[in-house]
Formats: sequence, structure tokens, C-alpha cells
Amino acid sequence: MHYPEPITKLIDSFMKLPGIGPKSAARLAFFVLDMKEDDVLNFAKALVDAKRNLTFCSVCGHITDQDPCYICSDTSRDRSVICVVEEPRDVIAMEKMRDYNGLYHVLHGTISPMDGVGPEDINIADLIKRLQNEEVEEVILATNPNVEGEATAMYISRLVKPSGIKVTRIAHGLPVGGDLEYADEVTLSKALEGRREV
Amino acid sequence: MHYPEPITKLIDSFMKLPGIGPKSAARLAFFVLDMKEDDVLNFAKALVDAKRNLTFCSVCGHITDQDPCYICSDTSRDRSVICVVEEPRDVIAMEKMRDYNGLYHVLHGTISPMDGVGPEDINIADLIKRLQNEEVEEVILATNPNVEGEATAMYISRLVKPSGIKVTRIAHGLPVGGDLEYADEVTLSKALEGRREV
Repeated sequence: MHYPEPITKLIDSFMKLPGIGPKSAARLAFFVLDMKEDDVLNFAKALVDAKRNLTFCSVCGHITDQDPCYICSDTSRDRSVICVVEEPRDVIAMEKMRDYNGLYHVLHGTISPMDGVGPEDINIADLIKRLQNEEVEEVILATNPNVEGEATAMYISRLVKPSGIKVTRIAHGLPVGGDLEYADEVTLSKALEGRREV
Repeated sequence: MHYPEPITKLIDSFMKLPGIGPKSAARLAFFVLDMKEDDVLNFAKALVDAKRNLTFCSVCGHITDQDPCYICSDTSRDRSVICVVEEPRDVIAMEKMRDYNGLYHVLHGTISPMDGVGPEDINIADLIKRLQNEEVEEVILATNPNVEGEATAMYISRLVKPSGIKVTRIAHGLPVGGDLEYADEVTLSKALEGRREV
């Protein structure tokens, strides 16, 4: 099939994004042709700026355009709690909640022997350094509730506990608005196990 | 919620694309951060190039990076047939089929009084000019099989027929691989109406 070359290249670029196949890519590319030139230029600039101007915070590993990041440099936050998450987008999810006022530590991955990812491949060493140098009272392990996330949480908890710092794991249970009937067995069993007096 | 500014801008840009909401936009933006810098630069360049270097063919209205477009300037094509379609992507769909060797005419829309689009707002006048100046024997109306597409096809057919040029409409019926049981009544009725001896 013969598209004009500029559009073929644009389709190829869109196809590199996750969840976008040839049909969606063509649809997006044709949409771009109908966009205002200013919007397209801003889009192109946003792409390059995001890639070039964002780095990882040298303290917590969160994505940022200043170092240390806006969370680490915010003096109003509670510096005695560190919440350990897998990815920068998990920080965003936590921040959206507006309930947590402590600091973060982003691992950039999980321990996953199947994929050849060991503890030294993710940002654990920096966490241990922070715990030695900062006045931290609690480490909240908020890795994802799957096999790799659990294994990573377990590994970090064993590493941190001997130093006397409190280590907690976020609760597993039924999601709010969920339905008991459709919950899987493992979630239901965790929800029962984690029951609390009311 | 507080994203670093470059990523907010990128998310906003992605959200302008069709079918991409805030969650998908954030996912795509974070994916871009993980992409190789070269790929991101190429993506940005492809956006700008596609927008800047593509125009509409002055003959048929198809999207092109040269004028006249590769179809209009292809001397091996049958110049006695013009297939009328709504959008450049319809030309691409027709070309994919590899069964059609004539020329095209892109209307860039359909007559739609509800949206205030009349015959003079789409590329019909140019079609009539082409029919007067070129040696055309058949006009195939391949607008979409919906209310606006049908109305547009009807309008063009009434305009062209008096000149003695053959005007045809693409067939309506069951899609290949479709299921009689699940076909809507209008499609089924059109399929019956358009039945042919075998």
C-alpha cells in the first residue's frame, strides 16, 4: 500500500506506542493532519521537552524537572515516613489520593528472577542509604499486589527490619465499589485475613 | 494533582487525539519518557513533517506530498473512471484492495444540512469541472452507506447523469464473513434487493 512518505513515518511513530496498532495509528495520523498547525507544533515540542527536561530525582527516584523533586524539597511534608513504590506513576496515583503526606522512594522495577532482574538491578541500595542517613520511622511497602511486588516487599522488609525501623505493607482486600460475588479467591482470602474490628 | 510541567503538557497534547482520555494519555506520556531519545525526536519530526509537507492534490483532493498526487500522475491508471469518496483515508482503503485501477475524487465531507454543510462546502464543484474537461466514462459513488453518504451520492448522481456519464453506486449487502442472523434489517433488505443471478 502506498501512503505519502510523511504519513507513513507518522503512522510508524504512533505504532511504537503501547496499545496502538496499525489501524489506530492511521486514524491518529490522519487526525494530526486535520489539527491546527500550532497544536501539532506544541505536541512535537511537548514530546521533546518531556524527554529532554525530565530526569529522575537523585533522592527518591521520582520523575522530575528539578533535582531534588518537588516532593523531596517540600519542607511541609512528613520526613519520617517513606512510601516505597515501583514506578513514578505510582507516586502520581498516591498523590492523587491527597491522604499521604510523607516521602517516596521509587524502585523503578521489581525483583523478578524470571526476567533476570535481581535486587541490585532496582533502586534498593539508595533506599538503604536513605534509611541510614535520614530520620525515618516507618517504611510503607506499596509495591503492586502481584508475585513480583510481594517478593520485592518481602525482600526489602527483611533488609530493613533489623535496623528497628517499622515496616508496613499496604492492605489487600476488596476494592471499594467491588462485588464480593465476583472477587477472586485470593483477594477474598486476603480480605478475610485482614479483617478489623468495627 | 501535581505532575512536573513537561509531562502535564505532553499529557494534554495526547488528550487532544481522538479516543484518548486522561488515563491513556498519562500512560502514553510515561511510555514516551522510557523511549529512546532518537525515537522521540523522530516522532516529533514526523508530526511536524506530516503537518507541513502534506497538502491536498489540486486535481483529486487526495492527501499528497507532491502535486498532482501519485495516483493522478500515474499514467498506467484508467483515466475513464473516477471513484468519488468522502475522505483521503477512503482512498487508502480502496487502494489496499488492489482491485481498482481508476482515478479518485475526494469530497472532504458529505452534504449534511443538520451540521450546516451544503453541496458548496464540499469538493463537488471541482468534480463537475473534471467531468467537463476529462474523458470520463463512469463515476463510481463510494461515499459511506449512511444517511449523509447516501444523500451526497444521490445529489451527485442527479448532477452528473444529465451529461450522459454512467453513474454507479457501490453495493450494499452483507459484509463477507458476516452473519445473516446478526445483520440489521436495513442491510438485509439491501442485500436482498441487490441479489444477483449466479
